[in-house]
Amino acid sequence: MTYCLAMRLDAGLIFASDSRTSAGVDNVSIYSKMHRFKTRDDRIVVLLSAGNLATTQAVVNQINRDLDNPEIERDLNHFSNLDELTSYVGDISSAVQEAHADQAEQSAFTASFILGGQILGRAPDVFLVYPQGNHIAASKQRPFLQIGETKYGKPILDRIIEPSTAMEHAARCALVSMDASMRSNLSVGPPIELLLYEANTIDQYRELRFDEGDPFLRETSKAWTEGLDALFAYLPRFYWEPGG
Amino acid sequence: MTYCLAMRLDAGLIFASDSRTSAGVDNVSIYSKMHRFKTRDDRIVVLLSAGNLATTQAVVNQINRDLDNPEIERDLNHFSNLDELTSYVGDISSAVQEAHADQAEQSAFTASFILGGQILGRAPDVFLVYPQGNHIAASKQRPFLQIGETKYGKPILDRIIEPSTAMEHAARCALVSMDASMRSNLSVGPPIELLLYEANTIDQYRELRFDEGDPFLRETSKAWTEGLDALFAYLPRFYWEPGG
Repeated sequence: MTYCLAMRLDAGLIFASDSRTSAGVDNVSIYSKMHRFKTRDDRIVVLLSAGNLATTQAVVNQINRDLDNPEIERDLNHFSNLDELTSYVGDISSAVQEAHADQAEQSAFTASFILGGQILGRAPDVFLVYPQGNHIAASKQRPFLQIGETKYGKPILDRIIEPSTAMEHAARCALVSMDASMRSNLSVGPPIELLLYEANTIDQYRELRFDEGDPFLRETSKAWTEGLDALFAYLPRFYWEPGG
Repeated sequence: MTYCLAMRLDAGLIFASDSRTSAGVDNVSIYSKMHRFKTRDDRIVVLLSAGNLATTQAVVNQINRDLDNPEIERDLNHFSNLDELTSYVGDISSAVQEAHADQAEQSAFTASFILGGQILGRAPDVFLVYPQGNHIAASKQRPFLQIGETKYGKPILDRIIEPSTAMEHAARCALVSMDASMRSNLSVGPPIELLLYEANTIDQYRELRFDEGDPFLRETSKAWTEGLDALFAYLPRFYWEPGG
C-alpha cells in the first residue's frame, strides 16, 4: 500500500507521502510517490500517487510527455484553473487503466491521486482523483485529503487540522499521521517526503525527505510517543481514583 | 460496523466496546456488544462481538442455553482452561454461520469475537475468535486484540500499551482509542462500555457505560484533543524555525 496526504490551509498547502511499494511481501521496493512538474512560472503542480505502480508511472510519464510535446496543447500549462487541470490528469489516469482493463481483474491496475498546487491569480487548492478519473476538492470543514492506507493516520488529522492551522504545526501533524501509519502498518514505509508550499510563492516551496532512521523523524516519533504517554495524566480520573 | 478491543495486562484485563449496529444508514440501532455469562464462581467470561447481529445474538443465546440446560455437559462451566473454552465458543460460532451459509452470499453472516476472562488457578487471558471459529491469543509483544473497525484506534494502542501498563492508564487509553474511532468513523458509536478486571478477583470487576454526551467521555475527548494540540510544541522544529 501507500499513504499520502495533503492539506489546504489558509497559509498554503502541505503534502506528505511514503515511499514503500509492494507486490507481495517478497517484492518490496522504494519509489517516490510525490511528483512535481516543470510547468510555466505562473503555476506549481504537485501530484501524489497511490495504487498500481505501472499505472501511476504511466500517468506521470504521459503528463511529462504532453508537457514536452509542442504539438500537444492540452497539458499542465494549458489550463487557467486547477479544477480543469485535475480533470485532465483524471482523464489520463482512466485512459491508462482502460488500456489494460482486458488483461486484469477489475481493480488490479487502479490508482488514485492527490493533485494540489496553485495557478497565480487563483487560490491554492488540492483535489483527490478517484480511480474512475473524477475528483473532489478539500473543504473548509475537512481541509485534508488522503489516499492509500488512510485510516491509521486519520484521527490525528480529524482532531488537529483546521484551515487556520499554521504551516509548520500542520507539517508536524502530517509527520505524526505518517508515523502512526508506519508503526501500525508494514506496507507504509520511509523515505517520507514532505512539501510545504506557502500560498502565492509558486517556486518558493520547501521540500524535505526523511530516510529510514532519520534523526528528525525518529525524534519526532519518540517525542510524540512520550508526550502521549504523559498526556494521560491530564485525562479525567475514574470515580474510584484519587481526584475522580 | 463495530469497534471492540481487549487488553491482557500484568494487572488484569480491559475490555471496551461500542454499541452501534447498522444495516445501512437508515437502519442504525444500539445493541450492547459486551456479554457476560452466569458461570460458576471460579471463572469470569467476557465476550465482545462484531459482525452480523443475528449471528452474534444466536451465539450468545446458544451459550446461555447450554449453561441453562443440565443435560448439556459441554458449556462454559465445563472447561478447566480458557483455550478450550474459547474453542467451544468458536465451534458454536461456526455452526451458527454454517446453518445459514446456503442462503447468503459468502461472508454476509460472519462474526468475530474477543473472549477474555479467567479461570481461577490459571492466568487471565484474551483470545480473538475468527469467523472460521479458530482463535489466537494476545501476546506479550502485542498485549491487545481488536475486532471490527480497528485501524483508527490502533496507533495509540501501538504506542502506549505494554503488559506493564497500569489498569486505569490502559482503560483511559482504551477510551481514547474508542474516541478516535468514533470521531473518524460514523459506524462506531455510543454507548461505550468499559470493563476492568483485576487478575484473580473473578467477581470484582468494574463496569462502566458511557452514553452519548456523557460528561466523562466528553471531557476525556476534549482534554485529549487539547493535549495533543499542545504536544506539538514539544516536537522538533524544522531547520528554518527558531530552535530548529
